[in-house]
Amino acid sequence: MASNVNRRVTLASRPVGFPQESDFSLDEAEVPSPGPGEVLVRSLWVSVDPYQRGRMSTQRSYAKGLELGDVVTAQAVGEVVESNDPRYAPGDVVLGQLGWQDYAVARGGALRKVPPGIEPQLALHVLGQTGLTAYFGLLDVGKAVAGDAVVVSAAAGAVGSIAGQIARIAGCRTVGIAGGADKLEDLRDLYRFDEAIDYKGGYVRTALKAACPEGVDVYFDNVGGEISAAVHPRMNVGARIAICGQVSQYNAERPEPTFYPQLLIVYRARMQGFLVTDYAHRFGEAIPRLARWVASGEIRYRETVTEGLENAPCAFIGMLNGENRGKALVKVSA
Amino acid sequence: MASNVNRRVTLASRPVGFPQESDFSLDEAEVPSPGPGEVLVRSLWVSVDPYQRGRMSTQRSYAKGLELGDVVTAQAVGEVVESNDPRYAPGDVVLGQLGWQDYAVARGGALRKVPPGIEPQLALHVLGQTGLTAYFGLLDVGKAVAGDAVVVSAAAGAVGSIAGQIARIAGCRTVGIAGGADKLEDLRDLYRFDEAIDYKGGYVRTALKAACPEGVDVYFDNVGGEISAAVHPRMNVGARIAICGQVSQYNAERPEPTFYPQLLIVYRARMQGFLVTDYAHRFGEAIPRLARWVASGEIRYRETVTEGLENAPCAFIGMLNGENRGKALVKVSA
Repeated sequence: MASNVNRRVTLASRPVGFPQESDFSLDEAEVPSPGPGEVLVRSLWVSVDPYQRGRMSTQRSYAKGLELGDVVTAQAVGEVVESNDPRYAPGDVVLGQLGWQDYAVARGGALRKVPPGIEPQLALHVLGQTGLTAYFGLLDVGKAVAGDAVVVSAAAGAVGSIAGQIARIAGCRTVGIAGGADKLEDLRDLYRFDEAIDYKGGYVRTALKAACPEGVDVYFDNVGGEISAAVHPRMNVGARIAICGQVSQYNAERPEPTFYPQLLIVYRARMQGFLVTDYAHRFGEAIPRLARWVASGEIRYRETVTEGLENAPCAFIGMLNGENRGKALVKVSA
Repeated sequence: MASNVNRRVTLASRPVGFPQESDFSLDEAEVPSPGPGEVLVRSLWVSVDPYQRGRMSTQRSYAKGLELGDVVTAQAVGEVVESNDPRYAPGDVVLGQLGWQDYAVARGGALRKVPPGIEPQLALHVLGQTGLTAYFGLLDVGKAVAGDAVVVSAAAGAVGSIAGQIARIAGCRTVGIAGGADKLEDLRDLYRFDEAIDYKGGYVRTALKAACPEGVDVYFDNVGGEISAAVHPRMNVGARIAICGQVSQYNAERPEPTFYPQLLIVYRARMQGFLVTDYAHRFGEAIPRLARWVASGEIRYRETVTEGLENAPCAFIGMLNGENRGKALVKVSA
C-alpha cells in the first residue's frame, strides 16, 4: 500500500484556450517527509473542478497561479500516514488542498478531519466545497426565499445540482439549464427541478419565458456567456444574480464581455461574485445541514469517477467539456 | 403673468442615436382646468436629466415610454394657480412630474410642497431627485464608509458632484472622473475631490492607478462604457459598484456589453442598479441632511441655466453632450 514513489501530475505548459493532455506531465518523486507540525497524507481521492483552469493561466485572479512544473492545485481526501501534529494519527481521513499527487505533506492546521461514517469523497463535493458553494451562493449571495423563481445554469453539475435542490428545500420554484438528454433526465428525475431546459436544444430564450412566466428572482450563474445573456432579460425587479463561475469563459483566449450593467437599473437588481473560502467561518453552520439533507434524501448527488491519478488531466478536460454528470472525481487509491 | 396659452414641448419623432432638435416640437394648447382633487400649476423651472432619453425610445425600461405627441416627461417646480385640493393654495410652490410645459394639472397627492426659504429650483437637484440619487446610491447601494476609496464617473454632473461630496463628508477618499479643463477645475476647487481625472486626456487607466494606489472600494457609476471598463479592474476585494446611470449607452443604437461578470468573482464584488424612486419612503431622512450640508457649505453645487421653455430640447441635447456644468435647468418663468 505505502510505496516509496510519489506520482505527481504537474503543469507542463500553460493551456492556450482549451487544455490538452500534453499540458500536463506525470512525474515521479520521492515520498516527502513531514517536518515539525506537518502531516504526511496518502491520497484516496483527488478533485477535478473548474476553478483549477484559472490557476493554469497568468491572468490576474483571486489566487496565485501555478508555475510550470508545479503539482496541479486540487482538493483531495487521504489517509494520514505519518503525523507530527498531535491532532492527527495514522489512519485518520483528512481533507486538504493536497494537489494531484499520491502523497502530500501539509501543516496540520491546513487539514480538516473527515468524520468517520461518511464516504470520504463526499467531503470533496456535497459535504465539502461544492456543497458549501451552493449553500452560501444560493442563500447568502442570492438571498433565495420561499416563492422565488430560481434559475441555475450548469444545473447538472456538482454545484448547480446542489444549488437547485437547496432552492427546492427553501420553497423556491426551480429551473435548471443543462446540455443534453442525460443531464436533462438528471435535472428532472434525480434533482427534481420544476423545469429543465436543454441549452443544446436552442431556443433557450423561448424556453425560459415558458419556464418562468413570472420572471426570475435569483439566477445562480455557473457559466456566463450566451446562456446567461438569455437569462438576464427575464430578471424581476429586485433580482439577485449570484456569480459562482463563468465556465464558458475560462478557455476563451480573450473573454467576451456579455453583460449590460444598464439592465441592473431597469430591474434594480444585484449581481455579486463570491468565493466559498470567504465563508470558512460559517462552514460549521452549513455542513451539518447539508449532511442532514443528504441523509434524509432531500439532497441527491451523482459522481463521475475516473480511476487512476494518471487520468486526472483527462477527467479535468472532460469536465470542462461537460462530459461528467454530477461531481467529477479521480479515485487514486483504495 | 397668467396667460390663456399653454406652451408644450412634445416628442415629434423618436430619436435615432443622438437626439436632434427636430425630434421635438413646440405647440400651444389651452391652459387645462383642474378637476376635483386636482391642482393647476404654472411652471417656474423644468428639469433636464439623462433618464429622459430612455423615455423617448421603445426599449423596455423601468417606466412607460412616451408616445409621439406626448409632452416630454420632466420634473418641474411651479406655483399653484388654482387648487381643488385643500392641502394646496394659490401661490404655494410645488414639485411634481409636470413635463416640459407652461402649465400642468396634477392630483394633489402627486405633488410635494417646496418649503419656503429655499430657492425653489434646488428641489429639482441638490435637495431633490439628483441629491437623493447621490445620497442613496452612495450610502445605501454603495455602502461607502470612512476610509473607502470612492470613484465617481460624470463627477462634475448633477448627481456625481453630490455623490463625491457626500463621500468626502463620510470620510472617504474621493476620485472624480470628468471631461475637460472646466469640469476638472470644478472637481478640484468647487467639489473638493481628492483626485480629479480628465477622461478626455486619455490614459484613464494610468491615472486611476496613480489616483487609487490601494484600489477602489466603491464605484459610483453614471456612465458605463469605456470609462467604467477602466475602473473595473481596479476594484478591491469586497468592492461595490453602484449603477446609477449608463449615459454613454443611452444614445447607442445598440449598446455594447462592456462588463465581464467574472471580475465579480475575482473581487467578490457586487454590482447593483437602483432607482431613487424606490427610496421614496426614506426621502424624509435624506432631505434634511442634504439641506443641512448645503446650508453649512459642506455641499456645493453649480447650475447651468437655459432661459425659456422653448429651449428645453437644446438644453437636453447639450446635457447629453456634456456641455453643462453641474445641474442643467430650464427657467420657464419668474
